Amino acid sequence: MSLAAQLLSPRRVALVGASADASRLSARAQLYLRRHGFSGTLYPVNPNAAAVLGEPSFGSLAALPGPVDHAFILVGTARVEQALADCIDAGIPVATILADGFAEAGGEGRALQARLAALARGKIRLLGPNSMGVMDFHARTMLCVNAALEAAPPLAPGGLSVVSHSGSVMGTLLSRGLARGIGFAKMAGTGNEADLTAGEIASLLVEDAETQAILLFLETIRDADRLAAAARAAHAKGKPIIAYKLGRSNEGAALAATHTGAIAGSDVAADAYFRDCGILRVDMLETLIEIAPMLVGRRPPASRRRAVSVMTSTGGGGAMVVDRLGTFAITARGPTPAMIARLAAKGVAVSDAPLTDMTLAGTRPELVEAVLAELQAASHTDATVAVIGSSAQFRPQDALAGIVAAPRAGKPLAVFLAPQADASLRLLAAAGIAAFRTPESCAEAIRAWLDWRAPRAPAPAIVLPRAGAVLDEAGARKLFAALGIESPFAVVEAETIRPGAPCPLPFPVAVKIVSPDIPHKTEVGGVALGLTGATYSDAIVAMVRRVRQHRPEAHITGVLVAPMVKPLAEAILGFRRDPQVGPVVVLGTGGVLTEIHADAVLRLAPVDDAEAMEMIVGVKGLAGVRGYRGLPRGDLAALAHAVACFSRLAHMPDILQAEINPLAILPEGQGIAVLDALAVPASEVV
Amino acid sequence: MSLAAQLLSPRRVALVGASADASRLSARAQLYLRRHGFSGTLYPVNPNAAAVLGEPSFGSLAALPGPVDHAFILVGTARVEQALADCIDAGIPVATILADGFAEAGGEGRALQARLAALARGKIRLLGPNSMGVMDFHARTMLCVNAALEAAPPLAPGGLSVVSHSGSVMGTLLSRGLARGIGFAKMAGTGNEADLTAGEIASLLVEDAETQAILLFLETIRDADRLAAAARAAHAKGKPIIAYKLGRSNEGAALAATHTGAIAGSDVAADAYFRDCGILRVDMLETLIEIAPMLVGRRPPASRRRAVSVMTSTGGGGAMVVDRLGTFAITARGPTPAMIARLAAKGVAVSDAPLTDMTLAGTRPELVEAVLAELQAASHTDATVAVIGSSAQFRPQDALAGIVAAPRAGKPLAVFLAPQADASLRLLAAAGIAAFRTPESCAEAIRAWLDWRAPRAPAPAIVLPRAGAVLDEAGARKLFAALGIESPFAVVEAETIRPGAPCPLPFPVAVKIVSPDIPHKTEVGGVALGLTGATYSDAIVAMVRRVRQHRPEAHITGVLVAPMVKPLAEAILGFRRDPQVGPVVVLGTGGVLTEIHADAVLRLAPVDDAEAMEMIVGVKGLAGVRGYRGLPRGDLAALAHAVACFSRLAHMPDILQAEINPLAILPEGQGIAVLDALAVPASEVV
Repeated sequence: MSLAAQLLSPRRVALVGASADASRLSARAQLYLRRHGFSGTLYPVNPNAAAVLGEPSFGSLAALPGPVDHAFILVGTARVEQALADCIDAGIPVATILADGFAEAGGEGRALQARLAALARGKIRLLGPNSMGVMDFHARTMLCVNAALEAAPPLAPGGLSVVSHSGSVMGTLLSRGLARGIGFAKMAGTGNEADLTAGEIASLLVEDAETQAILLFLETIRDADRLAAAARAAHAKGKPIIAYKLGRSNEGAALAATHTGAIAGSDVAADAYFRDCGILRVDMLETLIEIAPMLVGRRPPASRRRAVSVMTSTGGGGAMVVDRLGTFAITARGPTPAMIARLAAKGVAVSDAPLTDMTLAGTRPELVEAVLAELQAASHTDATVAVIGSSAQFRPQDALAGIVAAPRAGKPLAVFLAPQADASLRLLAAAGIAAFRTPESCAEAIRAWLDWRAPRAPAPAIVLPRAGAVLDEAGARKLFAALGIESPFAVVEAETIRPGAPCPLPFPVAVKIVSPDIPHKTEVGGVALGLTGATYSDAIVAMVRRVRQHRPEAHITGVLVAPMVKPLAEAILGFRRDPQVGPVVVLGTGGVLTEIHADAVLRLAPVDDAEAMEMIVGVKGLAGVRGYRGLPRGDLAALAHAVACFSRLAHMPDILQAEINPLAILPEGQGIAVLDALAVPASEVV
Repeated sequence: MSLAAQLLSPRRVALVGASADASRLSARAQLYLRRHGFSGTLYPVNPNAAAVLGEPSFGSLAALPGPVDHAFILVGTARVEQALADCIDAGIPVATILADGFAEAGGEGRALQARLAALARGKIRLLGPNSMGVMDFHARTMLCVNAALEAAPPLAPGGLSVVSHSGSVMGTLLSRGLARGIGFAKMAGTGNEADLTAGEIASLLVEDAETQAILLFLETIRDADRLAAAARAAHAKGKPIIAYKLGRSNEGAALAATHTGAIAGSDVAADAYFRDCGILRVDMLETLIEIAPMLVGRRPPASRRRAVSVMTSTGGGGAMVVDRLGTFAITARGPTPAMIARLAAKGVAVSDAPLTDMTLAGTRPELVEAVLAELQAASHTDATVAVIGSSAQFRPQDALAGIVAAPRAGKPLAVFLAPQADASLRLLAAAGIAAFRTPESCAEAIRAWLDWRAPRAPAPAIVLPRAGAVLDEAGARKLFAALGIESPFAVVEAETIRPGAPCPLPFPVAVKIVSPDIPHKTEVGGVALGLTGATYSDAIVAMVRRVRQHRPEAHITGVLVAPMVKPLAEAILGFRRDPQVGPVVVLGTGGVLTEIHADAVLRLAPVDDAEAMEMIVGVKGLAGVRGYRGLPRGDLAALAHAVACFSRLAHMPDILQAEINPLAILPEGQGIAVLDALAVPASEVV
């Protein structure tokens, strides 16, 4: 039996600590398995009762009459470690742990969780702790304590699978899906992820025959590489992965940490990560369960028109969606003259207005079908939206017959139902058509579709040579130069500095003191600008003397010499390792304004020149050097190349963070210049 | 009978053009009036049938046996004008017009609508055209063709009244409200507003005894002053007005124009307008019907902590709300030690974590009540959020008993139900508690509450003297100086310019040519900077000669002399008249970056110094002159005063737009300086 089957579709289940009291949480797994028709073998394990909830129970795992695929450990926190050891002794391949009080509780809980992980390693696979369990809707195996399973059976299965850090949100999605006829394939609550992570489970679901789309509810990202690999595999199979992730705000990130012991990272970095993985990120809870039918079997859109066709039977409802789409810079485009003519030939009168408002004709299925067929086939838009008014509430069949009959090929179709129209929601779900309850989730789904990118190929696993020990500015510049960043500089050793010493670069030059002990050079008179042949050697001699006076204890390596430049603009180029998603590169405008306007673009590192150019285009404050309002253009190709080279720091695991600030952008053809450089090796940050 | 009663609660109704074919739109008003139990007098008017839908009908309005309060004109566009004339002849005080094809259709439709308005003026009040009608739920008077009225009677009445430009959205709100037990008092679909506007109807609803809150669905604002007056009256009565307005994007604004002939204005101006009126603006459709119970009987919050208390029975559900609140810079704050101690004394264990996560204790009403009582009374937060998990679905009474029993006084309470929990939504609605279906609308409602301001007092109706004819820069500066902006300048008449002429200001000075014919002074050599005693008179003589050579046809008034200044930063100060909301003042950072970052704050004009200071604080790029990172502070008081003075252009109806760009911000105590000035009188823009 595969890990996927053992974990998600076990046939032989042990419930360790199954309660004989039906009102207890630890009784629920048994109740729900039975309620929903589990047809495999069930072993309640309870040392204090001969029978549990009417079934014979066993005093210990050792006493079971046969092998077990998956043990659900329901005992309290303090007894989990022993129960896990018992599972290992019994040769059980997978255990899920319900109890909380582990990493999310901090301190001792964290240590306890580490012991569980160590105990399990190589012997048993672990889901949780702090996991509500797993569900297989096709096999009717509800090995789960979530109260959403109070729902009356049968729970119609479907093609959506869910991986959720939060067990309760798993129940929220189930409850909302069931009410609308949205069927699920499998669900897993991963809790604290001491072993099995969302990424690994997603990779199992990619291979699952019944899973058509994978929904993720994430509080953090603990296994960025594995999830990225799962996303690439999902892309290859045409199975979309859609994520809702907490931590958009600092408040949310802090909360996630206390909930399932999540590590916090930058949300912008998480965004960049999802984009690079080809995972669609949605911002609203309902979009997560509503969007999937638009995407199943599809790949990211080939065109980026950011234009949609919109058909409506209700002007106001249509306008709400279009207005919201406009806030995402997505435009509604009316039918072309050829489309209008073809529809007219069929007796359907439509105008070229952006909103194809059919008013009362919107309740005539043959007209709706004809119009939708044209919109779906149109090549000037990338998606179709249909908005249905009150007919969706009172005459669902009439309202939807035309939509259900219209061709599904071509582009994705999103249907927004303006009224409360539960029967129509179910009808559309049954037909595999994406139906939206609110104009906001409908517009967001279109936005997510248009922003969807194919996964980026994984970066080659190069490891560059170690950067060495402490890096002063000269060391950082040498490192960046080795990565390919072209910005002339020279270091003049301290012992060669004397009156009349020659300058290694053409004048005029800027000179800075180089010392590992002096971070703030200006304060000690360690910077001189605009030196010429007349002033150079006297200036550097004076500088060394001055700095020695100020800081007699400092080791002075020498001075750094660089050409004076006249930049069109200054940028800031940064590199760091995000705790969730790993190495990232950030480009922003220089100076105080970057921070004030949050005007920076972040990407996972490394990037190539083309991606770096996309970053440049995304920084608003660089509009000037892009030629905005006729301003002189900067050397964007050189800038892009510098960004790409710099981002290769990702391959140097001993560099934790680095920065070129300012980075001077020179006129076209003249390249860029590093004005200050910083690189922090691992040893310096603990 | 008052206008309000005639319009919204008529007892004697004529249906002009009532159809005998029950499937026709023009039959619906009669069907729905009867279906929902209209108990007044109904006169179908149809020249071609003796009976309509089983009721005796009349050949004309002239043939009616008694007086009529309100005629619903259901005939086609071409016959509306005659029908309206007939209503006037019959002495009917109010008519609603269903037909479309008027201003929203442009051209002839616009002219036709103008004729209707002229015909009606002083003789009859008009709702529409393009109106679906009105509803009074307490009087069961559904004088409306919206298909949402297919709903089974009785429609339980409530306290929310709706004014909607879109008839179909009125139906959307009704349908969604009914499904959740949210009751309405009155609804009116205003369509094209040839006469009665949303603002006037809102003012009637403020006086309506059954209306507790007013919901607006707006596609435009046609009567800013009247709606503002209604909002002030509503504030006085403790009746909140909540608006959802299209036009957040250009796409939406364009669509609104084609839908009910709306005029487009700036959405930022609309935002400023709502804020100044004390109208809460919401961004999501469902928030509009969900938020009201949080606000009924309340005034805007006295404190601005942007902090909430959050109690939850589901960690994941609570985290979704808190994360979303964080994106609005709203923080969840845990109980204080005193609160924790009091709860412990009652046997309730809570921590000081931001999210008061009760897990399973969240299903015990007495514990929930105790915790909520503490949170509601706490003085360190401005609102309370309760999040309920699966118990809301399966045990609504248990899940909600504690919430319903908890004290309602103090701050507003918002309840988010994580699962699909229709019965709980109805239970909360019946208890008058705000219940939210999505974490997004819940968070948005809290945001709207915390952003709510009391209406600003109306600006005094001053009309300043006319500015006169064409304004060159000198004229604009004189105008701004007359308004109180202190920035020294002088004009030297052309005829006094000669070698040795004295300078009217201390050196150094900047000099610019003054000519109504020369907008671009630099191009003709018409600007000179940094002039001193040694260079001044020669420079201005040369300037006049140079400009005359370049532009012999131009009239040269003279030169403008201003002191040279060293600004810490430059701002742009603008004034214009928004087509929807009237005069507005805009402050942004100077230069290209304002446009790129959209870094400007807009307010309705005029503003006082205190409001101007709030504007300054809102401009991100002015962080430097506010002392960010220890940068030298600018003269913010002088800047605020200049903004307030400038905004008094609102009182000069002949000034259409004006700009000071750049406006130099000098160091503290040194004031500001106008570096360039522009004012456009009405005559120049047609």
